[in-house]
Amino acid sequence: MTLSARPTLSQVADLAGVSVASVSRVLNGLPASREMTTRVRAAVDSLGYTPDARARSLKVGRTEQLVLVVPDVGNPVYTGLMRAVAAVVKDAGYRLLLSTGNSEVAEEIAILDGLSSGYADGVIISPLRMTEPILQALQRLRHPAVVIGTPPAAVPLDAVQADSAAGVQLAMQHLVDTDRHRIAFVNGPVDTVPGTARQRGFDRADERLLAGAGRRYAAAAFTVDAGRDIAERVLDDRPDAVLCANDLLAFGVMRVAHSRGIRVPDDLAVVGIDDTDLAAVVSPGLTSVNLGSGERGAAAARLLLARIADPDRPAERVVVDPWLTVRESSTPAREGDR
Amino acid sequence: MTLSARPTLSQVADLAGVSVASVSRVLNGLPASREMTTRVRAAVDSLGYTPDARARSLKVGRTEQLVLVVPDVGNPVYTGLMRAVAAVVKDAGYRLLLSTGNSEVAEEIAILDGLSSGYADGVIISPLRMTEPILQALQRLRHPAVVIGTPPAAVPLDAVQADSAAGVQLAMQHLVDTDRHRIAFVNGPVDTVPGTARQRGFDRADERLLAGAGRRYAAAAFTVDAGRDIAERVLDDRPDAVLCANDLLAFGVMRVAHSRGIRVPDDLAVVGIDDTDLAAVVSPGLTSVNLGSGERGAAAARLLLARIADPDRPAERVVVDPWLTVRESSTPAREGDR
Repeated sequence: MTLSARPTLSQVADLAGVSVASVSRVLNGLPASREMTTRVRAAVDSLGYTPDARARSLKVGRTEQLVLVVPDVGNPVYTGLMRAVAAVVKDAGYRLLLSTGNSEVAEEIAILDGLSSGYADGVIISPLRMTEPILQALQRLRHPAVVIGTPPAAVPLDAVQADSAAGVQLAMQHLVDTDRHRIAFVNGPVDTVPGTARQRGFDRADERLLAGAGRRYAAAAFTVDAGRDIAERVLDDRPDAVLCANDLLAFGVMRVAHSRGIRVPDDLAVVGIDDTDLAAVVSPGLTSVNLGSGERGAAAARLLLARIADPDRPAERVVVDPWLTVRESSTPAREGDR
Repeated sequence: MTLSARPTLSQVADLAGVSVASVSRVLNGLPASREMTTRVRAAVDSLGYTPDARARSLKVGRTEQLVLVVPDVGNPVYTGLMRAVAAVVKDAGYRLLLSTGNSEVAEEIAILDGLSSGYADGVIISPLRMTEPILQALQRLRHPAVVIGTPPAAVPLDAVQADSAAGVQLAMQHLVDTDRHRIAFVNGPVDTVPGTARQRGFDRADERLLAGAGRRYAAAAFTVDAGRDIAERVLDDRPDAVLCANDLLAFGVMRVAHSRGIRVPDDLAVVGIDDTDLAAVVSPGLTSVNLGSGERGAAAARLLLARIADPDRPAERVVVDPWLTVRESSTPAREGDR
């Protein structure tokens, strides 16, 4: 330690001979043994440690509430995420509130800025677009925050990300292995976090497996209605498989195929992404890439709790691997998970 | 006005010659003209008006946030409700937070009691069970609250209720009119707000239309999985129609019918309740009773805003009428809304 560097929580912990979490407990006024308290206080005094602004706001603002901000409460992938986050934070004594920016960056920023009133101890946000204003709002936040998504590497934020490219590759490999070759990719808006990542994944897999022959379409939103609207054009081009950038788009495509008498999976394989609860409810059941939304929610919750316990810990990034759940919508025989 | 009665906001408004809403604005420190402010202040002084505890807490706690408490964020009827509430309160400058008690009364009570920390200006709650402890928690609340459901008539709470009995009657009449007579009713837990109301509706319609011949079943929860579980037993009894107490139960029944080779609607009509977005997504589309969840959400939001503006207004109850959306799952010919 040089004289000019601000002492850290870890150095206090080392000197006191206790864990960083224990130091946090004492500094945040949580129950701790008398001996523990004495040792931590002595180390704090000896090093001249002062908690930074974020740590101070934590001490003031023990609300026992955390907030999850998602783009759309009507999309089951986000309600699944909420259940996963809620399960983890509940064990730590926190209640979870859900807030939505309705796919509007300005509203997401207003929610982040609104945290300054101190009604919650931390936030997990899954922004639809990772724009500069969102990153700035996150950085001026005095509360612990975790991002579900991929902020630029230079930005020191705790983040949990999916591996969309690997997920799209799994789906494409499955389609090619089951003899589909005229593959259409139906994305949502490309300038969004999922849109960009899934497009990049498709481009890569298309190049590798179909020598770039795949067709690309962009729906107006990640919704069933937008899927229905674009399906007319997609099906006119007579693909033998449609990979959709989320399950809702896939449901829209399946409805239009049904109304045109196109049989799924016999005439057309349909694959979604997100593997929502609904994928197993529709008939035929929808094959879907699971990007681990439950696992990402749980990981984000654990990162947030760790950040609350230790505001000085280095930013951490977690990547969750995808898998493919195969159901009837992409299997040639009419059997499978019914 | 007798000398012993506490003066009300309406009396202040009458004396000042302005609306109750204007009095609320002045007392809550919101922008108002100088003339308006002078007249209201003079009337307040002359009558000796003092705002009650609830009104005071409002003055202190302008958080611009409201909370909606629902039993299950995974049920699309509640996300639809949230969108309807959010749309109304947003126009009034409020942000909406969603909180869930996970179908547990104790958690719902903890959420209501947690409002005392002042992080929101009011709450709308759709309790799964209308128990005495919930009613007590609502009555000790210092914040404006609106219930979606049917509290006992003697309890002075703003409430918005569905007319489940009329909704069930619509569905039963439709089934009888389309020549279905062996009708099974699949309820969720009967000791819940929707379970009780929908059971009563079925009993009445069954008596009137089938002379009490309808069969009754109770699933373990209002979920797709519970619907699947009970469907085995229901379908063994060979009904020609199944009316389910919500759409999720109906999806579970449709999946099991599909796996047994029972054709919907040719062999079996299936009808749900709630008319969620998903009812139009599945194939065949699900006929469903719409209990006006969007309308109830909007009405609850308007009641809450009115209560915030005037804490002294008398409690109000709003009943929303149901309608039936007929899709393929209950029409004999394979046509309709595809």
